[in-house]
Amino acid sequence: MKDQIFSIINADYIDVSSLKSLLSEMNTVDIAELFEDLEKEKIIWLFRVLPKDIASYVFAYMDSDHQQVIIEALTDSEVGDIINKLFVDDAVDFIEEMPANVVKRALQNAQSEKRKLINQLLQYPDDSAGSIMTTEYVDLRESATVREAFGTIRKIGLNKETIYTCYVIRRDRMLVGAVSAKSLMLANPNDRISEIMDTNFIFAHTTDDQEAVADQFQKYDLLAMPVVDREQRLVGIITVDDIMEVIVKESTEDMEKMSALAPSDEPYLKTGIARLAKNRIIWLLVLMLSATITGSIISSFESGLAVMPILMAFIPMLMDSGGNAGAQSSTLIIRGLAVGEIRKRDILRVGWKEIRVGVFCGLVLGLVNFIRVYFLNGKNALLSLTVTLALFATILIAKTIGGLLPIIAKRIKIDPAIMAAPLITTIVDAASLVIYFSIAKVVLGL
Amino acid sequence: MKDQIFSIINADYIDVSSLKSLLSEMNTVDIAELFEDLEKEKIIWLFRVLPKDIASYVFAYMDSDHQQVIIEALTDSEVGDIINKLFVDDAVDFIEEMPANVVKRALQNAQSEKRKLINQLLQYPDDSAGSIMTTEYVDLRESATVREAFGTIRKIGLNKETIYTCYVIRRDRMLVGAVSAKSLMLANPNDRISEIMDTNFIFAHTTDDQEAVADQFQKYDLLAMPVVDREQRLVGIITVDDIMEVIVKESTEDMEKMSALAPSDEPYLKTGIARLAKNRIIWLLVLMLSATITGSIISSFESGLAVMPILMAFIPMLMDSGGNAGAQSSTLIIRGLAVGEIRKRDILRVGWKEIRVGVFCGLVLGLVNFIRVYFLNGKNALLSLTVTLALFATILIAKTIGGLLPIIAKRIKIDPAIMAAPLITTIVDAASLVIYFSIAKVVLGL
Repeated sequence: MKDQIFSIINADYIDVSSLKSLLSEMNTVDIAELFEDLEKEKIIWLFRVLPKDIASYVFAYMDSDHQQVIIEALTDSEVGDIINKLFVDDAVDFIEEMPANVVKRALQNAQSEKRKLINQLLQYPDDSAGSIMTTEYVDLRESATVREAFGTIRKIGLNKETIYTCYVIRRDRMLVGAVSAKSLMLANPNDRISEIMDTNFIFAHTTDDQEAVADQFQKYDLLAMPVVDREQRLVGIITVDDIMEVIVKESTEDMEKMSALAPSDEPYLKTGIARLAKNRIIWLLVLMLSATITGSIISSFESGLAVMPILMAFIPMLMDSGGNAGAQSSTLIIRGLAVGEIRKRDILRVGWKEIRVGVFCGLVLGLVNFIRVYFLNGKNALLSLTVTLALFATILIAKTIGGLLPIIAKRIKIDPAIMAAPLITTIVDAASLVIYFSIAKVVLGL
Repeated sequence: MKDQIFSIINADYIDVSSLKSLLSEMNTVDIAELFEDLEKEKIIWLFRVLPKDIASYVFAYMDSDHQQVIIEALTDSEVGDIINKLFVDDAVDFIEEMPANVVKRALQNAQSEKRKLINQLLQYPDDSAGSIMTTEYVDLRESATVREAFGTIRKIGLNKETIYTCYVIRRDRMLVGAVSAKSLMLANPNDRISEIMDTNFIFAHTTDDQEAVADQFQKYDLLAMPVVDREQRLVGIITVDDIMEVIVKESTEDMEKMSALAPSDEPYLKTGIARLAKNRIIWLLVLMLSATITGSIISSFESGLAVMPILMAFIPMLMDSGGNAGAQSSTLIIRGLAVGEIRKRDILRVGWKEIRVGVFCGLVLGLVNFIRVYFLNGKNALLSLTVTLALFATILIAKTIGGLLPIIAKRIKIDPAIMAAPLITTIVDAASLVIYFSIAKVVLGL
């Protein structure tokens, strides 16, 4: 389909009617994707060819660069048409990505009611439920019948983001119930909404954290959730498609924090060099400076290393094994905490599990290591024993610290994700070297 | 609510009617959660108190330990009742977690039709679309009217996982269209389904990868997707609640791979020590043995280190900084590839970006490092210069390798996530030490 369309667009004589008929069969998401591979003039031209009733849906799915190209090329009244037809949450997403002059023009040409809603939603904090909600929902009155409810849905449903859950409000807009389209369809047309509505519904406040809302969606298998203000008045709804984005975003943020990056919403390819560097440099500096401790531990053992320089050769292996063993444990615990499989109160179970896993892994690695060091370094049993004991202790400590630090962080209300590999590596490095040199002193008499 | 229920259950005289009325107001998910904090006898007792019509829904939301306790305590006919009322996908999830004797009893007491469906779904590979689909959907015929469709939904809709998209099939069960409940509600009762159905719907094959299906759900904002067999016959549907689980699972797997863990589906607290150790040990061994290379690089420079032992003290700092810098880059690229923000063809853009970010970060870290080494090590400018140049080169190499390896992996069809921190650390460690010692030879004349 895509190739067909491109061959039409790039022909010398453009067959507009074939183009229109192809477009009318396509999903709006796929149409939006077409724009990614077009030059600027063709973008504006193709957008104008789109049927009026789908243009704003296609617009909502475009990336912000293309949205900007289009808005800058359209007339004021065309801009107004698009903004007015966008769902409020899509309009807010769009506005947030645009430069000030485009924002001004977009808002000036929107209907005053729409402008007011957009401005209101723009004020909610970035990670709040309010910032991802939309205001296009179906509201019903308790006293209405099922038949009247269907009438309302038929009249206003087309322009609502979902009609699969309708919300029941009182005259003062206080939310009192929810009715699924399923209950409406299975009910008797003369039943009152008050008889079939669910009064034990799950809802969010505008200021709730998006991550907590996403957890509720997953726990209760929701398709939409109503959002109320401080006075319990219905102000919007959140739909499951936006929640999927929140889930993906939260995972990305956790991964970034776990790799010592300042989390960022911006796509990698669109982020400037200075910004990318800034997101990385603070942690790199902190970790670099804290490695000074490890350096001074090595310096303090300089005389021992001078007597037996081969000991140096095992330092990278010890450090890397400790780092990797710690990262494995911390990742499992951080993720377990994030998805709710591990809770704060499980700290002792986690610690005890990691100690046993550490002993197990330490024994296997130690055995392999002993054989390797023994045969590759002149069958020196004492040297092999020193390195092996240090490796065993390193793995055990790395596993225990890696398992416990994230859960301790959670208990003292620090984000567990920042207690990940880089920080644990630094701690384990130092511990590992102190143990290594202490064992060397005892076993090798240095 | 929960506390109220527990105080009733734990009283000497149990007020069953108050209990039942409280339960009737609760969400099934919350009821399932109640069982987590009960002792075994109370679990079975409370389950028997549940209204018959919700018992199987509550059962579906319980964790597998409690499901097993209940199934083992119930009579054969009670077991049959529950299995028959479960949605097929929930039944499959349950069966997959149970020991063989429980599975046998559950299947023996299920209706033969249900048993056949369960067995069929159990045969799809773990990560396939077939393994997460359910068979409870509403199917319609093209020739039916909207009014007749509503009749079908009213008759069979109550026991279907979703009625919000209905699927249109021919006599041979071939899928020819999809109709949303929204179009049904907005249509004229006398319209034919063939006139209002969408023939350009998104669908999956039973053998499709779950991750690809999840990507489609996100791209097209779907609530449900039909699944067809090789002959395009409709065999099931996948609903968005299961897709959210897939998204979370895929992120977890990526994080595990990125931390050198064999990915696992089992919750941490329920996984045995031997299994946890097994998931970790292979990568630890591989990385430990590959650190031998780093060791031999150090050994080969033994004479230089003997002349100037202070050089040893900077090895951990160089290795850790390189590891962290590489991990930052690889995480951004692996995640960007996973969410589709970065594509295979962006390899040159990524490489060029990482080189510039590497230069930037290397300059800043180098500057701070120079000052620190200079003033803390007897104002030795040549030593400071050596360490600083090595640090700069390490950061630059780490960023470039960290950025490029995952995208190269993707191009040669290896999972980018395994090209993460641990592997990159090992490579960067070796490169960093070779550079460090080479610079030391030149600058310090060792």
